[in-house]
Order: sequence, then structure tokens, then C-alpha cells
Amino acid sequence: VGRRYDTISVLSDFGHVDGFAGQVTAVIRDLAPHVTVLDLSHDVPPFDVRAGSLTLARCVPYLPEGVVLAAVDPDVGTGRPPVAIEVADGAGVLVGPDNGLLAPAVAMAGGAQRAVALTDPDYHLARVGRTATGRDVLAPVAAHLCNGVDLAELGELVEPGLLLPGVVPLPRYEGDTLVCEVLWVDHYGNCQLNIGPAELADQWQLALGDVVRVELLDLTGGRRIRAAVLADTFAGLGPGEIGLIEDGYGMLALCCDRASAAAELQVASGDQVVLSLPAEHESHARPPVSTPVQLRPTR
Amino acid sequence: VGRRYDTISVLSDFGHVDGFAGQVTAVIRDLAPHVTVLDLSHDVPPFDVRAGSLTLARCVPYLPEGVVLAAVDPDVGTGRPPVAIEVADGAGVLVGPDNGLLAPAVAMAGGAQRAVALTDPDYHLARVGRTATGRDVLAPVAAHLCNGVDLAELGELVEPGLLLPGVVPLPRYEGDTLVCEVLWVDHYGNCQLNIGPAELADQWQLALGDVVRVELLDLTGGRRIRAAVLADTFAGLGPGEIGLIEDGYGMLALCCDRASAAAELQVASGDQVVLSLPAEHESHARPPVSTPVQLRPTR
Amino acid sequence: VGRRYDTISVLSDFGHVDGFAGQVTAVIRDLAPHVTVLDLSHDVPPFDVRAGSLTLARCVPYLPEGVVLAAVDPDVGTGRPPVAIEVADGAGVLVGPDNGLLAPAVAMAGGAQRAVALTDPDYHLARVGRTATGRDVLAPVAAHLCNGVDLAELGELVEPGLLLPGVVPLPRYEGDTLVCEVLWVDHYGNCQLNIGPAELADQWQLALGDVVRVELLDLTGGRRIRAAVLADTFAGLGPGEIGLIEDGYGMLALCCDRASAAAELQVASGDQVVLSLPAEHESHARPPVSTPVQLRPTR
Repeated sequence: VGRRYDTISVLSDFGHVDGFAGQVTAVIRDLAPHVTVLDLSHDVPPFDVRAGSLTLARCVPYLPEGVVLAAVDPDVGTGRPPVAIEVADGAGVLVGPDNGLLAPAVAMAGGAQRAVALTDPDYHLARVGRTATGRDVLAPVAAHLCNGVDLAELGELVEPGLLLPGVVPLPRYEGDTLVCEVLWVDHYGNCQLNIGPAELADQWQLALGDVVRVELLDLTGGRRIRAAVLADTFAGLGPGEIGLIEDGYGMLALCCDRASAAAELQVASGDQVVLSLPAEHESHARPPVSTPVQLRPTR
Repeated sequence: VGRRYDTISVLSDFGHVDGFAGQVTAVIRDLAPHVTVLDLSHDVPPFDVRAGSLTLARCVPYLPEGVVLAAVDPDVGTGRPPVAIEVADGAGVLVGPDNGLLAPAVAMAGGAQRAVALTDPDYHLARVGRTATGRDVLAPVAAHLCNGVDLAELGELVEPGLLLPGVVPLPRYEGDTLVCEVLWVDHYGNCQLNIGPAELADQWQLALGDVVRVELLDLTGGRRIRAAVLADTFAGLGPGEIGLIEDGYGMLALCCDRASAAAELQVASGDQVVLSLPAEHESHARPPVSTPVQLRPTR
Repeated sequence: VGRRYDTISVLSDFGHVDGFAGQVTAVIRDLAPHVTVLDLSHDVPPFDVRAGSLTLARCVPYLPEGVVLAAVDPDVGTGRPPVAIEVADGAGVLVGPDNGLLAPAVAMAGGAQRAVALTDPDYHLARVGRTATGRDVLAPVAAHLCNGVDLAELGELVEPGLLLPGVVPLPRYEGDTLVCEVLWVDHYGNCQLNIGPAELADQWQLALGDVVRVELLDLTGGRRIRAAVLADTFAGLGPGEIGLIEDGYGMLALCCDRASAAAELQVASGDQVVLSLPAEHESHARPPVSTPVQLRPTR
């Protein structure tokens, strides 16, 4: 008998209406009554593997020891079976589809140690249809892991390096600009970028209170320019002012105080955001809030 | 002292905003601290007893032993008191209004053995108003059942056959067609019909890969015709193609791959769907996807 | 070592998409594995401290012993640190921002006994950014309280009377009218007013079945007049009829039977509602339903 666990943290795109999440919890409770189910989110947008993978990776540093069950578009088109991946010397096992959903979380947990394709039906429910993979495969597998079944018993060991990787966009410098991407718009409308505060400090020697020029691209090819001030709290921002604030995950986010920066800036997850230093004569003062900075070449 | 339980599975139309579901859980935890509350769904559409009853019935096969608390429109207009119904030789007790909400779940669990009207106020909270039946009656009754109070102590035993039945529409053959109904549109837009795959196999000798003609009625009396292919996974469908797939409950559902069949077909729960064999010269090839089949008489 | 607790009840404006609520639960489970987390609501409208404070106060009478964690706009602009407040001789501790969110709940629990500003970082997570106060401060503090850490160890004791109070609007009489406010529109569209049934019974000797004149103010200054009947159940109302019903919190609410009174009356939380007795010749009969009462002076 292997290591036992007593927590299963669950992330999915099941929503809250249909009872899918409840059925997964019910299957776990039936097979492993000692386990506490910890719901991370069931509102990943349907089929949005990228959004799900980032949400899961953000949760990883806070999870207790145990199993993670992640189900976003688990019926992978290519016929790759779902997988279980061991991390952190066995302190955690992630169970989910082999579609990239788990990859950023595995990386955040220090990388995969063992991985297995979930091919042994003895550890699944008798399937009804072929579509309820979360309930019929992932849930019982997670429960059996908690009961001490070793990863290797669940199917054929696979080389972790052959699992589908996740794709996280990297920022890049183009001339005097830093081209970023909105990774995530949260419930409040804060827009997390794919850079941390060290990026701006190292490259441009910027500190709290300094101003950055933010260029947003319209779908029609037009450009909008705004100023954003480096801040550490929402409360430091004036009404309508845009801040660049280190968020709760160590990344910079475009924010407003008690308002949605996504609505103010009309940006969404996946949008490109180009940062640059303001023109010399603009850089010494915080610009008037709520007024777009006029378009002109930088230096 | 009767049998004790340690799980209460809860389904309601409370939503997630108001804290109703939390209050029910709080009452249970106060009276029966050893119990784990398992939330199935709190997003049944308000007052929609039919949708709630079907959601609950879909969950039944996966529930652990214990009590089910279901609250959709529990303040039954006719003044019938809520009920508790014992099933499966006491492995489960369902608590809820006598408005048909529990009936399909009871049938799925093998039928009622004992039933009681919840008329003894000693097992209720002191009521505040008359509207919070879920919190003031159903929750404490469920908790007392978990603590070993026997069903018969909760009020007057009633004849299970006199409880309000649920209504599930049956499919019917009309000439060469099979007239079905959409039982449920799930979070992804899959449209569950009230037939299983055996129906098409037995009646028309259809197998995976065969094509069925799907006729949808507009509210204005117009008809739309589409083709659907019998498939076993979403991934087997092309872009825009409609599949008829056995879902996770053993029923056939109209589906698309990573898209909403309900949006593609503009159908909703309760809509009628008429299936038939395609005309002879249509039946040998899968039709082009995304193109409505032309309207003409079959055979 | 102080008193230990085994329940943390959580209310927030985190929503269900981002995984914030899951991270709070994860932090608690990591630090205090014996604790059960009871989710009251995570759907308080973003930044809406008033709505959150009322939702929490409604839950208080039903909560088991333990800790309450409330997070709505916790990064208080003025720099006041979050607080922990002991109530009910230590049966409960409320943890949250010092922005008025906790005040009605504390009052409902009988008032504050001790209070502390959460200034000792030894009981917080190592902070990432300054924005995730719920996860990085409130969650670990709640967990440490459950583990027996005494309130006084968490920071500096503060005078409870100096904490920011909540604001609950009081009804007032103006001439022959009672000017009320909609405190809350629930999931079903019932509109809770800031008066209880005793108000109408004491002032106007009204009883079940009597009719009250309801005047609603448009934003444009126009007035709409409707009649509402005092009732005790939704089922006693005819189609389209408005009732004034004692709700599950002992307050009067404007209600319809299986329909939204908020939609029928076009009112929202915070709107003013003016009640008066109907003119003499109107008072003896329930008015026809669904027909606005004609506008004319009362008595």
C-alpha cells in the first residue's frame, strides 16, 4: 500500500447548474469517505484549457498535500488517455486529461516525478456512455490514490516529458517597448500581465509612483494609449486612474480602485499590451487621470 | 435509536448569492456536527420542479448512503406538508416538498419503502415567517435523521403511493418517426433526449456512424431539418456537425464537438425533436456538415 | 492555549471563477486540517460592503460556534488594518476588514467583547503583493484562531467602539405614510423592507388579509402606486398579486407567488418604498390583481 491522502482539490469547467461537480464529490465520498473535497473552481470557461491551466497553477502554492483532480475538456480528441502525475516527492498527485491542463501546475510544483496513463479500468467506474470522464475515470482514480493505491497500479507508466506541455506566452522586448499579454481578467476586472515587477525595475529602473505608457491594440488595428502608475495598493489610485500593481501571484496587473480595469481599458484575456517609458517631458509627473495620453512617438 | 447517517446531499434552487444554502449547511452542522454536506446543485432554475427532479434523479446512482435534502419551491401551494421518504432498505432517506420533486429520484433508487409527512414541530427550528421551509424544516429534519431519529418519529406515516408523482415525458412513434423531447440542456449545450441508444438500435437497426434525420419545430410552426450522426465521442464529430451520443446517464443527446448543440440547433429544454431515417439516397453517406438537409418527404 | 474551534464560515465577494475562495479554503486546510469550511456566499456584489454586511447578519443566528471570515473590499483605503472581534463569550470570532462589513453581524451576535487589529505578521502568510488580504491575512488568522491562538496574540487590542460601524437605514413616519427602504432583493425577486410585521400591526392595526398602499418613486420623479395584501405564504397570492409577507428573517418583504416582485415592481436594493393605508372606500376589499391602483390622495 502506498501513501494515503485526505484531500482532493478539484478544478473543472462543469459549472454549478448540472450537478456534475456534485457527482464527482459523491463518487469520491463513496469510495474514500475519509477524504475532504476542496473545490477550487468549477467555472473555468467551457473547453478553455489555457484558462483552466493558469487558474490551477495559481492555486498550487496554497494547496495542502493530496490529490488534484482537474477536468477541462477531458475527452481529449486525439484519444490520449487521461493521466496521473506525481510531484514533490509524492506530496501531491495531479489527475486529469493529457491536454496541457496540468502542465503549468506541475511546473509550479517543481516538475513531474512519475506519470501514468489511466488505462486500467479496474480503477474506473463502470462507464455509462464515453463522455463522463471526470466522474467515471478521474474521480474514482483520485479516490483510489487517497486510499493508498500506488500510481503505478493505475495503468502504464509514461515518460513525463512526452505529456502535452502547456503554453504560457512570454513577454518580449521590441525596440523601446515591452510587449506583454493579458493572462487573466479576474472577477474584479484586474488584468494580470505576463510580467512581474522585477521586469520593470531591472529594465527601466522604475519604482513605485513612476508612470508607464500603456498601448492597447484594437481589433481594427487602431491604438489606444493610456498612462499607468506603478502602485502597491488599489487605494493609492485616484478615480479612473490606471495602476500597475503586483497582484497576489507576484505578477503585474492593470487595476483600478473599486472598478474594473478590463472595462475601463476594454481588454480581455489574451489581448496584447505594449508597455514603454513615457516621453521625457511626461515622465516627471503623474498624468491627469481619466484622460488618454496623446499619441506621439517615444523619444 | 435508528440508523445513523453521515452525509446529507443537497439540491435546491437557492442560488449562490443570498446565503440560503450556507444557512442550511449551518443548521445541519449545528445539529449534527459529524455530517458532511455534499452540494449537488443550488442552481436549479427558480421554482422549476421538473428540472430539479431530473437533476436529482441523475445524481442518485452516484450518491453515498445517507440523506438527500431537496428544496425547489418547497412551500407547496396546496398546503401539503413536506415529506421524508425511505428507500433502498434504509440506505437512503429523501427529504423535500411533496410536489413531485423527489419522485424520479425515489423511482431511480428502487421505490419508496416508508414515507412520513413532516408535521411534528419538535424536529423543526422555531419558525421565522412561513417561507424558509428549507432552512427551518428540511435542514433540521435531515440532521435529526443523521443523528438516529427514526423516520416514523417525524410526523404521520403516509402511503407512498399517495405522494405527488413526477412527470417524465415518454417518446412515441408516429408513422415512420420517433417523437422525442429535450429533457435537459447541460452546461455545454448538449441536449439530452428522452430515449436511449437501444431505442434506435432496436427499432431501426442503427449503429455508430449511421445518420438520423432530426426535425425541429419552430414556435411559428416552421420546421428545420438537420442530420445527426450516431457517435460515441465528441471528438468524432467534425466542426458544425451534429452528433447523437450516449451521454453519461445512458440517454442519447444531441451534441457538437466543443460547441453548444443547443445554440447550433436553437433548442431548449422541453422542446420537441422528431427523429426519422433519412431518405434512401441520403442514408449511405454522412452529409456535409453545417448544411441543413433540404426539406422533402421521407420515402 | 485558548479556545479551539472547528468551523470557519466564509462570506466574500470573490465570485466562483477565479479560485480565490478555493485558495482561502486551501490555506485553512493546510494550517488547521481539523476545520470544516462552511461557505455562506462568495457572490456578494464586488466591493458592496452594505450588501455583504446584511447577508452576513442574516446568517448569524444560524451559524455554529466558530470563526467567521468575511472579505468584501478588504483592502481598506484608509489603511486601517483588518480586525478580529470576539462575540458571545468567545463562542464566535469574526475576522474581516474594518470597513463596516462585520458591524451588523456583531450586533446580531450581541455585540463585541474584545477586538484586535491584525498587525502581527507572524500569523499571516508571507505576502505576495499587497492585495490578497483575504488569503494572506484573514485565512491564516482564522486558522490560527481555530488552533487555539488567543485573539490578543494576533495584534494590538482595540476599543470595539472605535471600529467602523455599519449603516442600516431606519424607517420613518411622514404624515400618514411610512417611508421604508428595500434592504435586499433575493434570488427569487422578493424585496425585503426595513420593517417587521409588528410595525404595521402596532401603528395601523393591520392583520393578515388587509391591504396596504405601496408607492414607488421613479428615478424621474414619477410615482407608481400598487396595492399589497398582508399574507403569510406565497401560495395565498393570486397571479400578479403583490403580497407583504414576513420573510425568513422576521422582516416584511414585497413578494409574488412564483414570480419576481422586483421585476413586477421594478425596484432594486436601496430603493425607497412608501407605505400607507388605502383610502377608506378601498380598504374593505382586496383590489383586482395586476391592475395598478389609481393615483389619488389618501383620506
